[in-house]
Amino acid sequence: MEKPSFLQRLIDSMSRRSDSGPRAVARDSRRVASICAALLSERGEISGARLAREAVEAYQSLDGAALHAFFDVLADEFSPDPETVGVYADIYRKDPTQYNLTQLQRAVEAPRIQLLRRLNMAPGGTTVLLEMRRLITRELRTRPHWVGIEADLAHLFASWFNRGFLVLQRIDWRTSALVLEKLIQYEAVHRIAGWRDLRRRLQNDRRCYAFFHPALPDEPLIFIEIALTRSMSARVQTLIDPDSPVTDPSTANCAIFYSITNCQQGLRGISYGNLLIKQVAEDLGREFPRLGTFATLSPVPGFRSWLTSFANAADAHPGQAKTKEFLVQLERPDWHEDKELAADMQRELQRLCAYYLLHAKQGQEPLDSVARFHLGNGARLERLNWLGDTSPAGMNRSAGVMVNYVYRLDDVERNHEAYAREHRVIAARRFEILAKESLAAPQEARKSKRAAA
Amino acid sequence: MEKPSFLQRLIDSMSRRSDSGPRAVARDSRRVASICAALLSERGEISGARLAREAVEAYQSLDGAALHAFFDVLADEFSPDPETVGVYADIYRKDPTQYNLTQLQRAVEAPRIQLLRRLNMAPGGTTVLLEMRRLITRELRTRPHWVGIEADLAHLFASWFNRGFLVLQRIDWRTSALVLEKLIQYEAVHRIAGWRDLRRRLQNDRRCYAFFHPALPDEPLIFIEIALTRSMSARVQTLIDPDSPVTDPSTANCAIFYSITNCQQGLRGISYGNLLIKQVAEDLGREFPRLGTFATLSPVPGFRSWLTSFANAADAHPGQAKTKEFLVQLERPDWHEDKELAADMQRELQRLCAYYLLHAKQGQEPLDSVARFHLGNGARLERLNWLGDTSPAGMNRSAGVMVNYVYRLDDVERNHEAYAREHRVIAARRFEILAKESLAAPQEARKSKRAAA
Amino acid sequence: MEKPSFLQRLIDSMSRRSDSGPRAVARDSRRVASICAALLSERGEISGARLAREAVEAYQSLDGAALHAFFDVLADEFSPDPETVGVYADIYRKDPTQYNLTQLQRAVEAPRIQLLRRLNMAPGGTTVLLEMRRLITRELRTRPHWVGIEADLAHLFASWFNRGFLVLQRIDWRTSALVLEKLIQYEAVHRIAGWRDLRRRLQNDRRCYAFFHPALPDEPLIFIEIALTRSMSARVQTLIDPDSPVTDPSTANCAIFYSITNCQQGLRGISYGNLLIKQVAEDLGREFPRLGTFATLSPVPGFRSWLTSFANAADAHPGQAKTKEFLVQLERPDWHEDKELAADMQRELQRLCAYYLLHAKQGQEPLDSVARFHLGNGARLERLNWLGDTSPAGMNRSAGVMVNYVYRLDDVERNHEAYAREHRVIAARRFEILAKESLAAPQEARKSKRAAA
Amino acid sequence: MEKPSFLQRLIDSMSRRSDSGPRAVARDSRRVASICAALLSERGEISGARLAREAVEAYQSLDGAALHAFFDVLADEFSPDPETVGVYADIYRKDPTQYNLTQLQRAVEAPRIQLLRRLNMAPGGTTVLLEMRRLITRELRTRPHWVGIEADLAHLFASWFNRGFLVLQRIDWRTSALVLEKLIQYEAVHRIAGWRDLRRRLQNDRRCYAFFHPALPDEPLIFIEIALTRSMSARVQTLIDPDSPVTDPSTANCAIFYSITNCQQGLRGISYGNLLIKQVAEDLGREFPRLGTFATLSPVPGFRSWLTSFANAADAHPGQAKTKEFLVQLERPDWHEDKELAADMQRELQRLCAYYLLHAKQGQEPLDSVARFHLGNGARLERLNWLGDTSPAGMNRSAGVMVNYVYRLDDVERNHEAYAREHRVIAARRFEILAKESLAAPQEARKSKRAAA
Repeated sequence: MEKPSFLQRLIDSMSRRSDSGPRAVARDSRRVASICAALLSERGEISGARLAREAVEAYQSLDGAALHAFFDVLADEFSPDPETVGVYADIYRKDPTQYNLTQLQRAVEAPRIQLLRRLNMAPGGTTVLLEMRRLITRELRTRPHWVGIEADLAHLFASWFNRGFLVLQRIDWRTSALVLEKLIQYEAVHRIAGWRDLRRRLQNDRRCYAFFHPALPDEPLIFIEIALTRSMSARVQTLIDPDSPVTDPSTANCAIFYSITNCQQGLRGISYGNLLIKQVAEDLGREFPRLGTFATLSPVPGFRSWLTSFANAADAHPGQAKTKEFLVQLERPDWHEDKELAADMQRELQRLCAYYLLHAKQGQEPLDSVARFHLGNGARLERLNWLGDTSPAGMNRSAGVMVNYVYRLDDVERNHEAYAREHRVIAARRFEILAKESLAAPQEARKSKRAAA
Repeated sequence: MEKPSFLQRLIDSMSRRSDSGPRAVARDSRRVASICAALLSERGEISGARLAREAVEAYQSLDGAALHAFFDVLADEFSPDPETVGVYADIYRKDPTQYNLTQLQRAVEAPRIQLLRRLNMAPGGTTVLLEMRRLITRELRTRPHWVGIEADLAHLFASWFNRGFLVLQRIDWRTSALVLEKLIQYEAVHRIAGWRDLRRRLQNDRRCYAFFHPALPDEPLIFIEIALTRSMSARVQTLIDPDSPVTDPSTANCAIFYSITNCQQGLRGISYGNLLIKQVAEDLGREFPRLGTFATLSPVPGFRSWLTSFANAADAHPGQAKTKEFLVQLERPDWHEDKELAADMQRELQRLCAYYLLHAKQGQEPLDSVARFHLGNGARLERLNWLGDTSPAGMNRSAGVMVNYVYRLDDVERNHEAYAREHRVIAARRFEILAKESLAAPQEARKSKRAAA
Repeated sequence: MEKPSFLQRLIDSMSRRSDSGPRAVARDSRRVASICAALLSERGEISGARLAREAVEAYQSLDGAALHAFFDVLADEFSPDPETVGVYADIYRKDPTQYNLTQLQRAVEAPRIQLLRRLNMAPGGTTVLLEMRRLITRELRTRPHWVGIEADLAHLFASWFNRGFLVLQRIDWRTSALVLEKLIQYEAVHRIAGWRDLRRRLQNDRRCYAFFHPALPDEPLIFIEIALTRSMSARVQTLIDPDSPVTDPSTANCAIFYSITNCQQGLRGISYGNLLIKQVAEDLGREFPRLGTFATLSPVPGFRSWLTSFANAADAHPGQAKTKEFLVQLERPDWHEDKELAADMQRELQRLCAYYLLHAKQGQEPLDSVARFHLGNGARLERLNWLGDTSPAGMNRSAGVMVNYVYRLDDVERNHEAYAREHRVIAARRFEILAKESLAAPQEARKSKRAAA
Repeated sequence: MEKPSFLQRLIDSMSRRSDSGPRAVARDSRRVASICAALLSERGEISGARLAREAVEAYQSLDGAALHAFFDVLADEFSPDPETVGVYADIYRKDPTQYNLTQLQRAVEAPRIQLLRRLNMAPGGTTVLLEMRRLITRELRTRPHWVGIEADLAHLFASWFNRGFLVLQRIDWRTSALVLEKLIQYEAVHRIAGWRDLRRRLQNDRRCYAFFHPALPDEPLIFIEIALTRSMSARVQTLIDPDSPVTDPSTANCAIFYSITNCQQGLRGISYGNLLIKQVAEDLGREFPRLGTFATLSPVPGFRSWLTSFANAADAHPGQAKTKEFLVQLERPDWHEDKELAADMQRELQRLCAYYLLHAKQGQEPLDSVARFHLGNGARLERLNWLGDTSPAGMNRSAGVMVNYVYRLDDVERNHEAYAREHRVIAARRFEILAKESLAAPQEARKSKRAAA
């Protein structure tokens, strides 16, 4: 029988490992091991949620060395047996029937995945497992052998958090404080300074939507913030100003997606951003038939660090000297409030940013992570906004520049295909012109361009 | 790139297959194939739920030959490549790192599972997939090559319908008619004759609970019916009589579980019965502290057919002749209403039934499916009730006999272990005595017993 | 102090009255009296809902003579003192200030109303009070002195059940069985034969709406049933046939209101029918923009008894003889299935019915109660349907005739005003023509008409 | 007919009045008058909620002079006719039957009450009427003739907001921000400084409950704040400190009611405080069986101003000089932080406060409004807490003193009766002793006391 040996191995190995550590670690690990073992045994099958609850509580009491010992055991010893797997793979290779396939699939499943499934039966189990993956992911660089647990959790989550099970909910001032508080805490793009700030973002000319999973009713998985405006916004400070006047949303013709935040580090790699944007755009279009433009107001978060690499690159580009000067200026606090200086820098930085967005690559895709996301979703790079975000974060990462990506629902599939197959950046004509004139452009192109201008 | 070739293969093979069939089949299959292909392509990633909805609609329009053609394609051609799998298995066999394991696990996943996951994104997708498995399971005998799809669906469902995501709900007269109607339709143990019959089963001295999944709010997965009584019930007709007087549940000391029904054929093999019984027993115990006994009133559904096999067995047991006589009597309609005859048969049939429950085996487990279920859950076989169920079904399958299995929450783990390890049937002493005296018992045992009696 | 004397009087008088009756009555009445007295005392103010609960329980234990004794006490002795009221009225008459008015208003309020208000604080209190009014109203003819209690309850209910507090709810197959069961029980126009019958009335091409009060979540106050059809329905049997095919509601152009039922006898005289019809018409118009006609399919419940009075009237109208013949035919069971006979009667009965609807009066309003209701709401009498309702009730009361009243929301105010001021029956031209030709019409009119025809 | 004349009078008189005012007032008043008139006419009956909505909108557009003109019309001219009332009163005086009573009751109802009832049918109507009473109440001193409208509204509200229709809800961090924000805004006893402050008051060892009416789901009518503690709290600053550690509520033995706030000025005079305290005490007692003490921690809001009156009273009491000295000290900011001074004052101020609570009267009841409330509810004055509230408000009104009133549910009825009949202050023995020793006590009592001490 497979299971009893598994549980014995679990207890043994946790005890063995913790022999070398201090006593408390040894004792704690042994306790968790024995409960988890029980959970995997027939008792686990038969005792229902009770044993799962105990196991979760025991697990949660672990920390530091004991927790690491527990992960080590899960990672190292509870993988499928290589020989057995090999035998089933050979059988399938020789006789690739569906039956042989199912046998092989069963053989390659790690025994630990059953433990993870049973832990989920405890109240709050899902939250515990999300947190487990967050912890493991964080340490993966130094403990690469945990990748198997990480992959098992990722596999479970991809299945459990299937979009078909998520619920889209509007978040407004009627939402519970418990959830609203989490928006303040999670918001990753434009910091929410407090309740007054949040309140403005939930008023009548703003919208906020989130995906929830029924097992985590108080935990948004991802949320998006939208402003309903009368033209495509260029500056984010205007949008999030808590004292800005509230306008009548029925007169709006633009929906500006100005912030989108993934809340759960435990769901890393399982993205709902694309689905959320599109469903929200559809829903808003139905609610407000006058809306003609669905666009983001987005940072260019990799721009400034690319400027630095460009300036310091080994290939001695003629634009490097000038760029270095800019970088010095950019270090000055509040340089953008010096009107003259800002005007001076505006022309060249816009050109460089356009060049960066069109030509700086990571493999075949754009170097800029936000650009990768929206272009990959089938959006179009529409407009560059000088000093669109003058917050410290905006200045440090994007040199204050923001861009609008436009989502035209009829075009996203075509755009996406062009992007996915040919790695084409769909952008307004203006970007190409700016990029050609930039200091980073190949010199001949630039010269001819400037001559022509 | 893997996906485009997959979609091309899907279209090709569906077209090819249906060439031989009539034109409509060909056309339908091709349409579904092309939508499913799109769903698996980049467009599927990018178009969100819209394409999934189209694919589900297209799939639902298939029937007969076209549906079979679709399943054939999914089954035969979209399994992982045996060679590739073999290579990864060899790598893992040689160097069993966690990384190599995750690579192998990815390789053995059938490409079709991604299609199933995306279909689930459509509204109603989960229901469609449950129905798909039901259809496939039904035909598995004649089309064994569909077992791969069946296994993939089973794997998804085991994950999606994890107990941690299910919600226990009490069902009563406040429940929606939409759900109540399904109880009438699904009830598998003691037929619900109509709304009046159902109403009685939901009154104050009765309880009904079901597990629901958030994605299927109107679909019970499994439900259980309980009577709160003042002693352990022996006859089910009394319990389900729509005209029986309603008693005050706070005076009850027994909770009798008289019916438990799995509703979803698409979830076959994924059982919640054990968990449901135990959670309900815990909850009832809290609500009614006077409850001291938690017991079933259960049929013995394999008894009569075992009697037949015993009577006709090749090994010429001395009890066979007498048993054959009983079987003839049992054929007479309403034999049990003939008091004399019934009294005459009662003694021997009870003994035979006890023998059947204790000694008739399928492998090492009891032959009786209901006994297997409750004993496997850790319950104890407590009492045999002569003429406990005189409905046609009860007479035909159980020769009218019912039994009580008792769930003592403190004992179930120990009982279960004895059952699982030693295949011991935990039963009241009386059963052993009856069995020894039965016509089926080895003759010497029986004689000595009868002499002693 | 006013209250202690009140409570003493209550106890005294209930004791006194029940002295003459049997002992049990005396004892019961005394118990209720003392609890009610306490409820009205300072203890009532201070003990909150607890005392109210006891009082309601004590009240509910009363029956027969004890209940009557209780009502007698409430009715006879707990009215405001005539002298005191007279004094305040004189003051107000002499000096009609607002302050004097409020003093007078306070003086004319019966002390018992405070008791009723406090009983409402008990759980289920509102239901108990509704039932109290139902009982009292039923006996009012023989016990006219209870009219004061009745009026106090009516006054409270008019205030409590203000339309602003009611909630319109759609009722469908998702509604709880507890509520659905009440539809079956209350339906007053076209009997619901059982759950299958009800189910058909709740399917996709049917609608049912009810008003609920938050304190009575399981009790519809009034409900209306609607069929969404492709032309104005003429026959109710077609609409309520449980086997009729379900059609797509989005293709309907007519909403036929075929049944409206007041559920609470305790709310007699407080009508929501008009408000319900109009709100539902507005809501349906928004949901199904194609709906062009909102009409009823209504009985003519006073027609047959009017025919009898007409035939037997003292004024010796020439049409009487013929009408008597019809009445004899109408007695024959299933006369309408005799095609020849029915065809023969159709012409004259239609004419008589039109005459009845236009000219038979109760005061200045139509004699027919259903006509009074819909015309008073501003509807228009549109069409007469021969053999529109061949159920026993339909034949007995309406001689099988049904009519359509049309609600055109833009016209209802104007129609209502014409009806309310000039008692004008707004009807299709056809009715006037038919009426003029009828046997009941003044002879000269009829002759000229027939000559012209 | 009564109504048309009413509407004509309304229009006429509003027009007349506003002739003298500026044109806009005249125009606005006329518009509202004509809509209200329509609402009271047959159209009002027939048009359902539509006309009510228009009327509410028109009313809400009024302000300043136009609003006053509208109230004047309602107040002065739409009272019942004094002569008619007089006639019905005479009839009832002569022949006091129940029928004559109901006629009289109908006659004294002001016609305007029908208008108020119909306004309530509009969405948001109840809120508008509550606000109407708030406005009128505020101006009642200068416009005493509005008392009739005020009384009509009060009468409606007493009926509509019957305790039987209110819903008790726990308020915690899961409650909507919309409601929580109102707690911050309404809190009348111990200011909530912001969301962080509020959050602490809703944590696990705190409770907050409110009564809601179904028609106002976002508006608490009254709310109460409770701390679950391990002894009877003496200092409120400790309880409301946002940084205080959260304790386990299951270990608490005291429930301290430290704040109770009526939220709706429009409901002035309709109190739920007593009912709320008792229901919450019952509910908490069930949830936490260890709770033995239910007590308030209350201010003594009239203490300091009574000290001043005492010191300045004309009757030249020997304690006046010393008291004046205290009052001078009390003016010093932060006098209580001067340990020596505070110690010096403590003894005498405690005595004076005890004297104030036991002997300072308004009529036969305590002068202190908080004492009147809790003693009237049947609570017992238990303990005096020196420097229990050192906030500016606490120092200014109560000289920093707080007291505990204890609610023992078994005693409240008896206590209440002693209070209501004999005006007896139920207090711990200690208060009498302190009071006798106080500077305000009659001199002989005090001397003998001090000698004895």
